[in-house]
Amino acid sequence: MRLGIVFFPTVGPQDRPAQQYFSEALQLVDLAEELGFHHVKMVEHYFFPYGGYSPDPVTFLAAAAGRTRRVRLGTSATIPAFVHPVKLAGKLAMLDNISNGRVDAAFGRAFLPDEFKAFGIPMDESRARFTESVRAVQLLWTTEDAVFEGTFHKFGPVTLLPRPVQQPHPPIFVTSARSLDSVREAAEVGHHLQTVPNAMTVEELSERVELFRSSWRASGHPGTGQIHLTYPCVVAADPAEARRKAKYDEERNTAAISAAVSAWRTTSSTAYPGYEKLADIGKRATFEEKLADNKLLVGSPDEVRGQLGDIAQRYGDDLTLSLGIHSGHLDVEDAATTLRLLAEQVLPKLDNDPFAAEERR
Amino acid sequence: MRLGIVFFPTVGPQDRPAQQYFSEALQLVDLAEELGFHHVKMVEHYFFPYGGYSPDPVTFLAAAAGRTRRVRLGTSATIPAFVHPVKLAGKLAMLDNISNGRVDAAFGRAFLPDEFKAFGIPMDESRARFTESVRAVQLLWTTEDAVFEGTFHKFGPVTLLPRPVQQPHPPIFVTSARSLDSVREAAEVGHHLQTVPNAMTVEELSERVELFRSSWRASGHPGTGQIHLTYPCVVAADPAEARRKAKYDEERNTAAISAAVSAWRTTSSTAYPGYEKLADIGKRATFEEKLADNKLLVGSPDEVRGQLGDIAQRYGDDLTLSLGIHSGHLDVEDAATTLRLLAEQVLPKLDNDPFAAEERR
Ligand SMILES: [Ca+2]
Ligand SMILES: [Ca+2]
Ligand SMILES: [Ca+2]
Ligand SMILES: [Ca+2]
Ligand SMILES: [Ca+2]
Ligand SMILES: [Ca+2]
Repeated sequence: MRLGIVFFPTVGPQDRPAQQYFSEALQLVDLAEELGFHHVKMVEHYFFPYGGYSPDPVTFLAAAAGRTRRVRLGTSATIPAFVHPVKLAGKLAMLDNISNGRVDAAFGRAFLPDEFKAFGIPMDESRARFTESVRAVQLLWTTEDAVFEGTFHKFGPVTLLPRPVQQPHPPIFVTSARSLDSVREAAEVGHHLQTVPNAMTVEELSERVELFRSSWRASGHPGTGQIHLTYPCVVAADPAEARRKAKYDEERNTAAISAAVSAWRTTSSTAYPGYEKLADIGKRATFEEKLADNKLLVGSPDEVRGQLGDIAQRYGDDLTLSLGIHSGHLDVEDAATTLRLLAEQVLPKLDNDPFAAEERR
Repeated sequence: MRLGIVFFPTVGPQDRPAQQYFSEALQLVDLAEELGFHHVKMVEHYFFPYGGYSPDPVTFLAAAAGRTRRVRLGTSATIPAFVHPVKLAGKLAMLDNISNGRVDAAFGRAFLPDEFKAFGIPMDESRARFTESVRAVQLLWTTEDAVFEGTFHKFGPVTLLPRPVQQPHPPIFVTSARSLDSVREAAEVGHHLQTVPNAMTVEELSERVELFRSSWRASGHPGTGQIHLTYPCVVAADPAEARRKAKYDEERNTAAISAAVSAWRTTSSTAYPGYEKLADIGKRATFEEKLADNKLLVGSPDEVRGQLGDIAQRYGDDLTLSLGIHSGHLDVEDAATTLRLLAEQVLPKLDNDPFAAEERR
């Protein structure tokens, strides 16, 4: 199991100025680099405290690239619908060159009506645009004199510069919330999977993980496809302190997403069946229920080691976890403590064998 | 007179891999930061060795922001026509936050037919798109609940996040090649001016500099508008070595632009009167003629000090120069030597008074 960190700020100017947030995030990037974490990632959102500090994750990741040499750099995710594929392929290729080949490129469909509205993109087109744009980006990365004839974009022959460092191209991840078709299609074309356990039940996540792995194998791709799962994480020596802080943070994260999805009260889209229910997201599981369901990593080092063992037991240990350690509601020192305790007391003792984890229970 | 550096790579993968180019450019950023230069800038171009390594200057500038604390960060320029204004305003605002308020935002219309074609944007619309997009970006930076009703973009009410650090917004520069109307309009609305002496005669540049300054004053804006001029620059202790290297470099730069503008042989656009002649750019002034016309800064420290004095004499000394020191054809050590000699032997002795410069002649 590999651990990295993901930044998903859920603060606005009144809570924590962006200048302070980014300064703290870059301190944590330095710490993640130093402590040997696998990656740093940044989300893409707009207008709302829910991720809105980062309308362009590549800009943050480039700042991280400029001060690190080892840690991988991931979008989590970037939204192809909101930018021309030449621009998206070009800036990710620049980042791949600036970072000497450390880019993990995760793409997402987006799901907030207000974002689509601002960009003048019909939500009903989101799946078609996503599929077409990811195809266009991959073509630009791999092909000289590329010619593309899509529904939304046509170009070529053009040869993108710079050429990416990673060959044939940076790993492509599909960020999927729920759709089984998306999971299967990602594996079939050799894209990796990034998803959020908190967006589904334990059984639904198991089904998706298994479907991805079996489709990857059946498609004959080399190796195993990567599965990246995002978890909020607060570790402290005192488990009561960890839970108190994590609860405070989780409640503010829930309030942020509730505000961002409020447009779903008056929106419906054939491309997003059931999303109307998102408007009630604040009424879903409590902090305690999420903790019991292993959807948060919270507690003392020993407790979190146990929680990681449970995750490996349920979904296999060939997983990469992206830990949300700083949404902006706690002190940066709390996030630094989480990283240090993970590096010093959790990872060295982590038993990656799910059967050993089973025996320990 | 203030000096900074601008990166305008004119190399392709066969000349110098992008990974190497960016590594060298970031070394030079560190040196510029250390030696007290005013800014670092990066161009935006696509597909051709002529600037094509940088399809997204903000990505490079963010890497520079991540490793510096003082030097300013400028686009030179970025092209609003190729991106949605929410995206452009958003990523520049992120950069302004990540860099603690060091962004200079220069916008350009672009002029390469192949770039417009790839993005599916009619060249004839370029002026209207430029004006509208710069207005939209400025509105997003300055206004909460912004509503925009343009010809090409409509959005709002939306409040862009993050809010920029610099207030009311990062300095906006209009990058103008030739149009007197553009120069006047920039000054009238309080935008600064960025231009390239090599694209016009000495008399034409004088006329534009004077027009910008008088229009700025007449419009009642506070202070003086900034004028940024771009010059290729090679300084070496041995003046013959400086000239030999600068000539080698300039000839390759000219070859790169000649290839990039070749589409002008078969293009005409009402928005670009006279640009057809660009296809013959390779047949224009020789290296020696450009040097005699003070369009290059090349020679020993003493010679370059004299050339800077001549520029101050012609255009006033309230200028900022952006020096093209590494297009990728010379060694990075040559560029580092240029920076060191400028910092140690040129700037400390530079007499900023144009009348004193006159007496020295
Ligand atoms: Ca979204
Ligand atoms: Ca604290
Ligand atoms: Ca195992
Ligand atoms: Ca251009
Ligand atoms: Ca040399
Ligand atoms: Ca003076």
